[in-house]
Amino acid sequence: MGAARPDFEQVTIVGIGLLGASCGLATRRRGLARRVVGVARRPQTLQAALQAGAADHTTTDLPAALAGADLVVLATPVRTIIEHLGQIGPWLAPAAIVTDLGSTKRLVVAAARALPGPGRFVPGHPMAGSHRSGPAHARADLFEGVAWLLTPTPETAPAALAWVEAWAAALGAHPLRLEPEQHDRLVAYTSHLPHAAAVALVQAYRQAAAREPELARLVAGGFRDTTRTAAAEATMWRDILSTNAPALRAALAELRQQLAALEGALEDPAALELLLRQAGETRRELG
Amino acid sequence: MGAARPDFEQVTIVGIGLLGASCGLATRRRGLARRVVGVARRPQTLQAALQAGAADHTTTDLPAALAGADLVVLATPVRTIIEHLGQIGPWLAPAAIVTDLGSTKRLVVAAARALPGPGRFVPGHPMAGSHRSGPAHARADLFEGVAWLLTPTPETAPAALAWVEAWAAALGAHPLRLEPEQHDRLVAYTSHLPHAAAVALVQAYRQAAAREPELARLVAGGFRDTTRTAAAEATMWRDILSTNAPALRAALAELRQQLAALEGALEDPAALELLLRQAGETRRELG
Repeated sequence: MGAARPDFEQVTIVGIGLLGASCGLATRRRGLARRVVGVARRPQTLQAALQAGAADHTTTDLPAALAGADLVVLATPVRTIIEHLGQIGPWLAPAAIVTDLGSTKRLVVAAARALPGPGRFVPGHPMAGSHRSGPAHARADLFEGVAWLLTPTPETAPAALAWVEAWAAALGAHPLRLEPEQHDRLVAYTSHLPHAAAVALVQAYRQAAAREPELARLVAGGFRDTTRTAAAEATMWRDILSTNAPALRAALAELRQQLAALEGALEDPAALELLLRQAGETRRELG
Repeated sequence: MGAARPDFEQVTIVGIGLLGASCGLATRRRGLARRVVGVARRPQTLQAALQAGAADHTTTDLPAALAGADLVVLATPVRTIIEHLGQIGPWLAPAAIVTDLGSTKRLVVAAARALPGPGRFVPGHPMAGSHRSGPAHARADLFEGVAWLLTPTPETAPAALAWVEAWAAALGAHPLRLEPEQHDRLVAYTSHLPHAAAVALVQAYRQAAAREPELARLVAGGFRDTTRTAAAEATMWRDILSTNAPALRAALAELRQQLAALEGALEDPAALELLLRQAGETRRELG
């Protein structure tokens, strides 16, 4: 770790949806900053964030909110993080550390090269979330026990990395360093591919239900579990999937192979049972 | 419905895993039979079923357990149900009603034609289950509020159907009649396709984790939800998927189309967002 318990003067969170607001709430509850400022475009979001206790102060004025911050947390959908990285340089305090919560890292890391003092940027990705969105669902314990992935580059300043790791740990998470490309390749399997499969399952259901309306009465727990993530925010996932297209395509190709293997085993009970046993054992190991 | 609250002399449950044992437990708690007899092959299963309160008496002797039953519930994996339907005829009491809990119905209905008095057979499928298996996980409330699908054929005796519907309703379920072929076509979408996708996702994960061991640390809630059903019993699912191969193949083809549509939209944010919005709305409607 290397850094003490963080004690920021001002943490500014740009984008106060579920993740950003949970960061604000947890930072305030744990006393990690004198002041948390939340930035969003819509007044209703600001209002809801204040009500949820996610910030001491909220504003739509991004430059003003950045001016006094020693830690800036970019918590919008990924494409907006990338846009902000190209814009916010002139408004940052000289010693400000910048991190983000984006679910893909390759394009974020590339965009951060535009910052004045690119070493201050610490690319981050807490493996937390929900199919619920918005600051009203913020939880101070959202990050407890989860992996907080950090993908420093050769430019990243060690001190900035240490502070962000200390902050993530103080929120209850386990910081874990990965290369940016490796990060995107791995989360394609554990997060983006399951999301794509859930969405495709719901779309296949939609088509079938249009032909046979009785279908809705046959939806049970297995379908609900398997497709729950498809209810999550469309704009957030549009950015995640589209900014990780190359890795997701590779994972989709592997999913197709596995679906074909299962289909091929339908007429061979012994092969099918072996495949189901392998998957069952692997899944049970994951808790 | 048509039948009064059921009051069976003896309900014999053949196969006392999670579903069979939950039927036994619920039938006993609700006082729907003077006696519940559980049949299984392994002494440990009989012992666990007794401990769970799933039966008054258990035995490995199938003919003896059938002799005194006025309701016989076939609760094994589907291919064993099909075998039993070809064997149990000589051991049934003359007025015994027979039903099953199998998740596919086309081959079960065909096998039931071999029964002496095929009108006594009521094909059934409660839409309940768990990724946990075995009598130790039996729950008396497992069927509350779930759809209990019944697929009578032209041969099914109306009185037998009415008794099984009354029993299912007394266990808290909502009986729902479907044609056998329609049943298998519909559950392919709501149950078998999600299971196949979950298994394929776990298999794809396995392959990737063999290359990159760090992958296990990146498994979070979304992956766990989406793949939970893959932990369920391999022999049960081997029988379900293989006895519904034609309908599952059609559903798999539709899943592949939807995965291709999503992949095709990765470079077109507006199209991708529309697709994610459609899926999100449909999924949220399903609760």
